Amino acid sequence: MKFRTEGIRFPPIVKLREAARKFVGSPDFLDLGQGLPGHIPPRRPLIAFSERILHPAVHRYTPDQGHIELREELALYLRRTSGVHADPHSEVTITAGANQAFAGTVLTIIGKGDNLIIPSPYYFNSVMAVQLVGGKVVDIPVGSGFQPVFEDIEAAVNKRTRGILLVSPNNPTGAVYNRQLIDQVVDLCMDRDIMLISDETYSQLVYDGSTHYSPRSRKDARDHVVTLGSFSKDFGMSGWRTGYLVGPSLFIEEFMKVQDTVTICAPTPGQFLALEILKTGLDAVESEVKRLGFLRDLAYLRIDQIVALETVRTGGTFYLFPQVKGCTDSRKLVLDILQSTKTLVLPGIIFGDAGEGHIRLSIGPLTTEAIDEAFDRLAKYFNSA
Amino acid sequence: MKFRTEGIRFPPIVKLREAARKFVGSPDFLDLGQGLPGHIPPRRPLIAFSERILHPAVHRYTPDQGHIELREELALYLRRTSGVHADPHSEVTITAGANQAFAGTVLTIIGKGDNLIIPSPYYFNSVMAVQLVGGKVVDIPVGSGFQPVFEDIEAAVNKRTRGILLVSPNNPTGAVYNRQLIDQVVDLCMDRDIMLISDETYSQLVYDGSTHYSPRSRKDARDHVVTLGSFSKDFGMSGWRTGYLVGPSLFIEEFMKVQDTVTICAPTPGQFLALEILKTGLDAVESEVKRLGFLRDLAYLRIDQIVALETVRTGGTFYLFPQVKGCTDSRKLVLDILQSTKTLVLPGIIFGDAGEGHIRLSIGPLTTEAIDEAFDRLAKYFNSA
Repeated sequence: MKFRTEGIRFPPIVKLREAARKFVGSPDFLDLGQGLPGHIPPRRPLIAFSERILHPAVHRYTPDQGHIELREELALYLRRTSGVHADPHSEVTITAGANQAFAGTVLTIIGKGDNLIIPSPYYFNSVMAVQLVGGKVVDIPVGSGFQPVFEDIEAAVNKRTRGILLVSPNNPTGAVYNRQLIDQVVDLCMDRDIMLISDETYSQLVYDGSTHYSPRSRKDARDHVVTLGSFSKDFGMSGWRTGYLVGPSLFIEEFMKVQDTVTICAPTPGQFLALEILKTGLDAVESEVKRLGFLRDLAYLRIDQIVALETVRTGGTFYLFPQVKGCTDSRKLVLDILQSTKTLVLPGIIFGDAGEGHIRLSIGPLTTEAIDEAFDRLAKYFNSA
Repeated sequence: MKFRTEGIRFPPIVKLREAARKFVGSPDFLDLGQGLPGHIPPRRPLIAFSERILHPAVHRYTPDQGHIELREELALYLRRTSGVHADPHSEVTITAGANQAFAGTVLTIIGKGDNLIIPSPYYFNSVMAVQLVGGKVVDIPVGSGFQPVFEDIEAAVNKRTRGILLVSPNNPTGAVYNRQLIDQVVDLCMDRDIMLISDETYSQLVYDGSTHYSPRSRKDARDHVVTLGSFSKDFGMSGWRTGYLVGPSLFIEEFMKVQDTVTICAPTPGQFLALEILKTGLDAVESEVKRLGFLRDLAYLRIDQIVALETVRTGGTFYLFPQVKGCTDSRKLVLDILQSTKTLVLPGIIFGDAGEGHIRLSIGPLTTEAIDEAFDRLAKYFNSA
């Protein structure tokens, strides 16, 4: 039997996890592979949610676009935190995670033979989604500080280009894109009548004086920007599969066809929990975001002591993306690190060719003790290599 | 801006709900449109779930294929209830609902220009999923008793056919397909090396001495049958977006690319709850299934008193799919019923051309009182028309 997915590579993290499986039971296995934080959702909203567990509405479908109270509360939150204006009725939809929001956006705008421009390194699921619809990724290597170079993006737009994806703060590099670049890309999208897909999953995780800039805060850009967001990272609810999408109403109308076909609606319990966190849990979320900042400080302090790793300190996320001196096969390196130190990190190559020679370390789920232990091991590994 | 979804019609239920919106606030609005049962998940598993709400594992991603304990428990359950043998490691995956399982299956096997054979009337989301990938639906009107006619299916298979979809018990007709037909379709799929997609969402909702037959219980068919299932209906957890898929391991491997791209994994809370229900809630589920049977009895009793409605009593689901004498425009009829009686039913035409002249009544979410009231209104409406 023939499958239409044969040309798509297998999710790279899944394959690596299989290699790591024999270590996972081991008490001294350290996992720096998973892109999630260590905290769970705040206690008060969780208790409030569990107290309502016998309420019928928790168990039923919401409207396809999502629970209207959540959309309204989210619209207020986005205005406050990112300056984004969004009509909760026509411009906001709740999704089963930002990942489904992205895949759905691709299914809505990218036809066979169309292309999407993506700065590289990139989050590999983005590429898989485009491949799934028979589209092409035009992969543009970033410049210094992992910032995309506007002229390179501009030069890549052709008549089959349907959009440009910017993920800021970025996975895997942690780069917070500067406002000037984002504004240039917005202007370009308006000029060519294509869509800027702005993945802002990590928008709350900015540090060191960086600021997150949401292109949809520009009123003139509202017809050409789709904003993707997630409750997985800052709210600590990755398993609940709850995210959102803000876009022009005409786009939302088309997107809903995909949403209804694929998922009907986002999971209801996650919608209720996210609403409760927006109402009563934001202080607790802020503390967790600060705690992640301390983990970052520690990790950057420790990584600077490893001479084999050249690290650019970026302003966002809980990822470090150092270049490994002399490394030309990051996949082989990562398997060797795993064998030698029982520590899983991700090879840069899975984030695109521009990621080769790098490794991605996620410190999000670790304790300070585990971070110290991980860097002790990596220091020993690289210093003895 | 151009959208690739422009050729796909807007989800018909959403449009109807918009028309019904002005009535929804009204205390005497009756909704026979929604395809879900009235009960919520059993109390004991819900309490057990809520007591574990502070456990970190509830909040994090599971493996893409789903929580392994749930897959194991589900495999035992399927063996017991449907005679299906499935290896929980390689042949089972948990999905964000049976709908996502179906859309993902289509994304896995149907390429542009390929076709899927679907008996009609059909659940409209099936058609939307095929359109989404640029595939074609070959729509085969069913015969008497809403049973598909094997010869018609066989004659429709051509070299671009990638699969045949059977939904039994059926939405919208409630028909439980007979074993002989299903076996013939299995043989055909094996012979032509195409996939039987067996949507068994309503497998537990069989009545009046009907029995559900799962084609994957045939060991020789295991390479050519993908079984879709849902916890939404019998477990009363539609909002949790939790379903599953059982298929050959080679298929599962390809499907996981789509799953990872679209959803990463099914929502974790729903997986924990479904596991708990499988372990401690099946007695309570059985009571609810019986209760739905009483509602069916009442509804069939009442509908027989309306001479304008010709009803075939089918063996499964909580849907009635009567033909309305003289009706050639079910959409117009349904809007008129809504205006005149504040009662929402679905027009047969949205389930395909073969559904025209029919209406679908879902009694799943109603009480006995509401069923009586609904049929009082319909009797009055049709008797005065």
